[in-house]
Formats: sequence, C-alpha cells, structure tokens
Amino acid sequence: MNPDPQQLLRVIAPVQDGLERMRNVIALQLADASPAVRDMVEHVGRFQGKQMRGALVLLCGDASSNSTDEHASIAAVVEMIHLATLVHDDVLDGAKVRRRVACVNERWDNQVAVLFGDYLYARAFALSTDLSSRLCSRVLAEATRRICIGEIEQAASRYDFEMRQERYEWIAGAKTATLYAAACELGARYPGGHESMGANMRQFGYELGLAFQIIDDCIDLTASAEQAGKSVGTDVADGKVTLPVLWAYARADEARRAAIRDAYTLEGIEDRVARLRAACDLAGGVEYARARARELLNSAVARLATLPAGPSRASLEDMAGFVLERNH
Amino acid sequence: MNPDPQQLLRVIAPVQDGLERMRNVIALQLADASPAVRDMVEHVGRFQGKQMRGALVLLCGDASSNSTDEHASIAAVVEMIHLATLVHDDVLDGAKVRRRVACVNERWDNQVAVLFGDYLYARAFALSTDLSSRLCSRVLAEATRRICIGEIEQAASRYDFEMRQERYEWIAGAKTATLYAAACELGARYPGGHESMGANMRQFGYELGLAFQIIDDCIDLTASAEQAGKSVGTDVADGKVTLPVLWAYARADEARRAAIRDAYTLEGIEDRVARLRAACDLAGGVEYARARARELLNSAVARLATLPAGPSRASLEDMAGFVLERNH
Repeated sequence: MNPDPQQLLRVIAPVQDGLERMRNVIALQLADASPAVRDMVEHVGRFQGKQMRGALVLLCGDASSNSTDEHASIAAVVEMIHLATLVHDDVLDGAKVRRRVACVNERWDNQVAVLFGDYLYARAFALSTDLSSRLCSRVLAEATRRICIGEIEQAASRYDFEMRQERYEWIAGAKTATLYAAACELGARYPGGHESMGANMRQFGYELGLAFQIIDDCIDLTASAEQAGKSVGTDVADGKVTLPVLWAYARADEARRAAIRDAYTLEGIEDRVARLRAACDLAGGVEYARARARELLNSAVARLATLPAGPSRASLEDMAGFVLERNH
Repeated sequence: MNPDPQQLLRVIAPVQDGLERMRNVIALQLADASPAVRDMVEHVGRFQGKQMRGALVLLCGDASSNSTDEHASIAAVVEMIHLATLVHDDVLDGAKVRRRVACVNERWDNQVAVLFGDYLYARAFALSTDLSSRLCSRVLAEATRRICIGEIEQAASRYDFEMRQERYEWIAGAKTATLYAAACELGARYPGGHESMGANMRQFGYELGLAFQIIDDCIDLTASAEQAGKSVGTDVADGKVTLPVLWAYARADEARRAAIRDAYTLEGIEDRVARLRAACDLAGGVEYARARARELLNSAVARLATLPAGPSRASLEDMAGFVLERNH
C-alpha cells in the first residue's frame, strides 16, 4: 500500500508558512563564509528530506495553542541536528546513496563528512543559544546525548541475533525516537512551563518515532533501492539485527539460524537480503514488526485526545497514518 | 631545550584545587549508564593530556579577579570539547598512538570513534546549558563552529604548497587557537559584562593557541615518536603543508620543490620526514616557524600587563614559555 504522494503535503499544510520560515532560518544559518563549507551545504541541500521533525515542532505548537515567533527557529535547530546525524550516519553505514544524491562521504571523503557533521551540530547549538528561553538548548543537548548513546549501543550489538525485543526498542528509541520526542515536547511547551502537556506530547513523539524506525527497518529489508530512493539492505550488511530478523531468528530451528547468521556474515554475498529471505520467514517477521508499529501509533494517536480538535491535531493523527503506510 | 617536567606543574599550581574540581565534574558528566560508553570513557581517561585549556579558564578567572563557583564547570566543558575534537581528529588523521595509548579508532573502529566524539560534544553542551549564564554555551557553540570550519578548510588545502602564511595562520588559528581564546575569554568575563577585559584575554588566548599549533607542527616534523609520545610525521602523510614546509618550499628552486612534493605524495615512502629533510632546508623552516611563535607569545604576554601582578598572572606568563620550550 503506497501512501498518496500528496498525503504528506496535506499533513503539513497547517504549518506551511512556519516551514517556509524554518527553511529560511536554516539557509541563513548555513550561509557560511568558508568556501569549502558552502560547497557542502549546497550539496546536502539537495537531499533535504521530508522535514517531519521540523513539522512536528510546528504542528505540536499549533495543536497545543502554544505557537511562538521562535517555533520556526526551534524547528530549524531540530532539522539541523537531524541533518548532522544523517551526515555522520552515512559515514557509519557506508551508505552510498541517500535520497538519490550521493552522500557527503561518497562525494568527498569520510574525514570531511565527520567535520561537516560536527559543523552542523555546532551551528544548531549556536542557534539554540540565541533563543529567548534555554529550554531548547537543554532539551536538544540532552536529546543529542541520548542519540549518540543509542548509536553506540547499536554498534556494540551488531550481530547479536538473540537480542531481546526490549533492547532492540531501547536502541531504536534512543537513536531515532528521542529527536521526535524532543521536537514534540518543545513544540508543546517552549518557552517553558506546561510540564504535563510537554510530557504527553513527548510520549506521542517517542511512540511516533519508534514506529517510524521500526517501519524504516522493515523498508530496508523489503524495498528495492529504486523504491526507497536510498541504499537498502544496509542493515544486514552492517550487522544490524532488526526486529523482523529477531522475530524470525527466535522462531527458526538451528539449521535456519545458521543460515540467517550466514546471510549476515559470509564473505562475498551479493544480495544478503535475498539470502536472508531464503533462510527464514522474513515476511512473517516484517508482518510482526509492522503490527508492533501499528500498536505504537495507536497509542500515540490516543494521546492526542487531550488536545482541542482542529487542523493541526488532525495533521498529527494523519502523520501516524503516513508513518505506517510509507514504503520509502 | 627540554622544559623541566615540573614546569607545567608549577604553572598550574595556583589553580590546583580548581583543576581537581574540574576533573571531578568531568568524571561525573561521563559516568554514563551505557556499558559501551563507560568502556570508552575509561579508555580515553587514560590519555588525559596537560589540560592546559581548562587551566587557562581558571588562571584567567583568577588573574582577572573574576573567579566564580562555576569556573570549574566551564573548564570541564572546555576540556570535554577538546577531548571530542581529539577523538574526531584521530579518525581524521588516522593517527595510531596518542599519549602512548592506542586511539579510540584503533582500539574500536572509526564508526564508534565518530559516535563517541559526538557523545562528548553533546555532553559538553548539555553541561554548559546547566550553568547560570548562557555566555558559556554561546561562546563555546560559536568556538566549536569555527574549529570545524578550520578543520574543513584545512582538509580543502591539503597538498597546497603555495599557501600564503596568512591562510596557514587562519586555519591553525581557527582549528586550535579558537578554543584557547574562548577559554581565556570565559575565564576573564563569565558570567557576563567586562567586554574589554574579555576581548583582551581572548586575544591573549588566540596568540597563545596559535603559537601552540605552530610549535606542534614543528614537533611533528622534528621529534621522534618516542619523544613526542604520539605518532609523528602525520602531517606529511596526511598532506598538511605546515609553516616550516611552506617557508622551505617558497625558498626552494624547482628541482627542490619537486622533491618536496615527492616526499609528500610518492607511494611507498617509509619515512617521509627524512625524505623532506633531504629535499630542502627544513631546519631553516623550523627555525622561522619557532621565531614566529616567539613573536606571537611576546605579544600575548604583553597583553597581561593590564592585569594585577600575582601568582596567576605569573603562571600565564610562564605558560607562554612552556608553549615555546616544549618538544612533545
């Protein structure tokens, strides 16, 4: 089931103006005097993504009747942190194509990709320190710390086929859902106060982000590179054992388990995912993972009941549907 | 001329207590629940360096009669940012030994070194957002941005043998002197106000840091790995054309210039520095660079005249001597 390509546009319609302001803030922040930096900024500008995290800041602000003049800047900080993690992820994953544009590390080299990611983090933090309340700096510095821990723990868990689902979700939550949670919390309560509303929207963002990561992990196993617009099968190549594989591994006999491990580890395998599919009930695992994502999204949507009805709340509900239905 | 090994201890004596508090803050900040992170923290703890940048925060605070209870935490933020840059530098340089301990990227791999550097940056910013004044976050976010630009421009200038000295100094200043400058400014004026004193101490730190980098570049060309306690000759291997080489190149005839380029670029050269030494007047270049460092340090020390005489001001003067005389 392919989501209507216009669907995301409808989802973000209530905050279109704010997103335009956010893009202007990002462009201004990254207009640097350094020619080498300018060259890279111009390049990554071409793989601007769906900007869902920035949209969440604005939608949650609007839906909580908490919009301020600074929400577009907060959204910009969130998107710049996200862009920094993408640039460093590309170094880590060895991914070669992101959104149909060569990655920074492919076009330049790993050295420069590391530095450019650092630059984006620094720029994001510098912008956050210019805002009137320190809440943005505090929440996002802490979020960035958790993202790094999630990534480090993920690296430490490569090729762990017996990982418990709780640990898989802890890692996926830390590395991905943390920024969704921070975006929603800041939208709902920046510049301060409103702790219970903030906590509720933080939970909404966390569940939405965790579901997003679970679906992302499914797509890496099921989509073609052409559909996805980015390298696929990278998790298997990098030793990341995601929820569909954990499910299939737990239900496989020893011969199939050995075949799963082989699909991940043997040298010279061209299409590891095809090998994995032959080794186990991967489709069953994907179905299980999608059901778990649906469960998380239902819980997330239920949290929105405390908000007044309106177009932004409707968009947040639609976003949950978008996360579930996307296949790229 | 080898500096007395006790010299640095005497230099930091006036702020010994503050440095102890700073180390406690760092230890507390890095006491993380993640086992993988703990393992890395424990490892890098072993190559704690001279902590000159943290000492500068404290010495400048004391010498400007501006010490606060938060100066030890500011020093900790500065040292954590420095540690983050070291961890990422090691990825970039491919250096194998730092302070006689295997680098993070040698012991684990590049992936984890990138993530651990990100973690250290995030921890540093998170700590800075807990301080009572935002000056620390602001100055250090901006400093980090400049450090990254300096490193990126340096990467863009590899193998540029005709670089002007101004550009070499701009890059060395951005990547190294920026953090010295920020440390001294924050020491002298945190939590705020005192702009002219801050600007003066910022200049002091900038000149001290630039001299430090110039001397560092000389050591990479002249020391043995055993003396330096870290990999040497890495600049030549990485294509970094430093001041001594620029000086020698500008004064070489075409045959010698070709020999210099060969020392940097030909495949399979075991000891590139020895080859470089044979190709040109490298000793003359080192002498020139050291004279430039001395000039910068004299200017830096002259700026201290506005401070009241006392042990911390004397230590700042001694630190200039330490930078010039060190050979590792």
